Amino acid sequence: MKIAAFVLHGVPAVGLVSADQQSVQPFALSAEAAASGALCIVEIQARGDALPALLAPVPLSQVRLTAPLPHPRRNIFCVGKNYFAHAKEFAGSGFDTSAKAGGDVPSVPIIFSKVPESVVGTGDFIEMPVGISDAIDYEAELAVIIGKGGKGIKAGDALQHVWGYTIVNDVTSRDWQNRHLQWHMGKSFDTFCPMGPWLASADECDGANTGVRCWVNGELRQDARTTDLIFNIPTLIETLSAGITLYPGDIIATGTPAGVGIGFKPPQYLKAGDVVRIEIDGIGQIENTVR
Amino acid sequence: MKIAAFVLHGVPAVGLVSADQQSVQPFALSAEAAASGALCIVEIQARGDALPALLAPVPLSQVRLTAPLPHPRRNIFCVGKNYFAHAKEFAGSGFDTSAKAGGDVPSVPIIFSKVPESVVGTGDFIEMPVGISDAIDYEAELAVIIGKGGKGIKAGDALQHVWGYTIVNDVTSRDWQNRHLQWHMGKSFDTFCPMGPWLASADECDGANTGVRCWVNGELRQDARTTDLIFNIPTLIETLSAGITLYPGDIIATGTPAGVGIGFKPPQYLKAGDVVRIEIDGIGQIENTVR
Repeated sequence: MKIAAFVLHGVPAVGLVSADQQSVQPFALSAEAAASGALCIVEIQARGDALPALLAPVPLSQVRLTAPLPHPRRNIFCVGKNYFAHAKEFAGSGFDTSAKAGGDVPSVPIIFSKVPESVVGTGDFIEMPVGISDAIDYEAELAVIIGKGGKGIKAGDALQHVWGYTIVNDVTSRDWQNRHLQWHMGKSFDTFCPMGPWLASADECDGANTGVRCWVNGELRQDARTTDLIFNIPTLIETLSAGITLYPGDIIATGTPAGVGIGFKPPQYLKAGDVVRIEIDGIGQIENTVR
Repeated sequence: MKIAAFVLHGVPAVGLVSADQQSVQPFALSAEAAASGALCIVEIQARGDALPALLAPVPLSQVRLTAPLPHPRRNIFCVGKNYFAHAKEFAGSGFDTSAKAGGDVPSVPIIFSKVPESVVGTGDFIEMPVGISDAIDYEAELAVIIGKGGKGIKAGDALQHVWGYTIVNDVTSRDWQNRHLQWHMGKSFDTFCPMGPWLASADECDGANTGVRCWVNGELRQDARTTDLIFNIPTLIETLSAGITLYPGDIIATGTPAGVGIGFKPPQYLKAGDVVRIEIDGIGQIENTVR
């Protein structure tokens, strides 16, 4: 199933997207639960409770989608350099200045975070941080949504903790990422985490082998399959949960494939007016304009 | 003033600590507000509203202090290598493997984050991540609490956005910090952020020149003043808020002075039974036992 968060007649709502993706049936939820977006549904299912009642369907064209998790409970976990081809292009870009990381495929997952408030939905603007940075790059990513939480989760059990998936654009200021050594700030500027269009449950998307594509102004820039991941989803969950308890609704952006702007010579950074569209098989697509 | 979060007769409460630090007067708060700890007071003051009514004082000996911000709204912003003497000891430790960072004083602030759920209060245990890492280190830090939020805050205006201060122990797994390149995971293990004993408002602590001390089993390990900070608090706020909107209750741990375990040859890591006590002038002290 696909769970969308949206605004209907000015009020936040959460609903089940129809198979033909033409309509959405709102769940009967309290205002507080609806404001959490799809998190309330993930938490209900993580507890093993029944889903709330469904109301009458509404055409998707009549609602405004928001990010499915508009207020993540904590920063988004993100994985750096996790596709073989991207690790190579990133090393070749000259931006990869860490001695141990230089040119090599990472030997263990590299994890950083983005602040929750960087999240926006499909159709929202990516704001250029005018006067701060003009080296802004896109990164199309499959994001895992944790269902049942836990700690010390073994890779063999990890998929039992996956509620499903969504699309994330891990927008990045390359000069801040590089200059400040730790990537947190350059990844966390306001509007730097477009997410959506909804959550797709684990049965709808094969995280181990799905297509990830990204277009900028209609030009295909990224086109890969998650089979190229250096660290697969079970390994990421095992690594993260070794020391950190995971909770329902946690988001793990699994890294971006080759084809980002920094990989071009000269780099092809985003500029005002550019349109970034990302599509992942089994989920859908998001589109955001830079301004 | 000093604002403590605590449990009284099994119920979360928030209160004003008396000048002699012998008692605390609970605020009249809803259960939901009290569960947020001192955040509700910071938010009330950031809005310019009056403080809630005070109830009868209770001896501090009769309450159990919790972290003053037990559930931070998002990950804690942390600054790496921000004391001159510590930057030198860290470089000398051989653990600093980033080519650009090696041996040098950083030219710009290095920012990473800790997950909110790593927070514990004074008196709580720091749990050894058994089987995961035994290279666990302490880092005594002055933490800034943002009052009025904002974006693009200039250094000259930054102190107007500081509600006050608290103490943080930025507990770190050195092998995870080093091996995974980005420091997020090695800083975020469960219980790795002791915080407290309360919040001290900005008039009670001079963040620009206060003493930070840390003892392990009674042995003084860290003893510095914040005058040794490479990037002072206004600079940190200007840097962070350039691209990221700050909110009331945001926490910025400003970095640790020289004297951490990794600075010794051989390193003096924490082990079960060790007691870490941190004291900052104008705030108070926290003490946590490793188990």
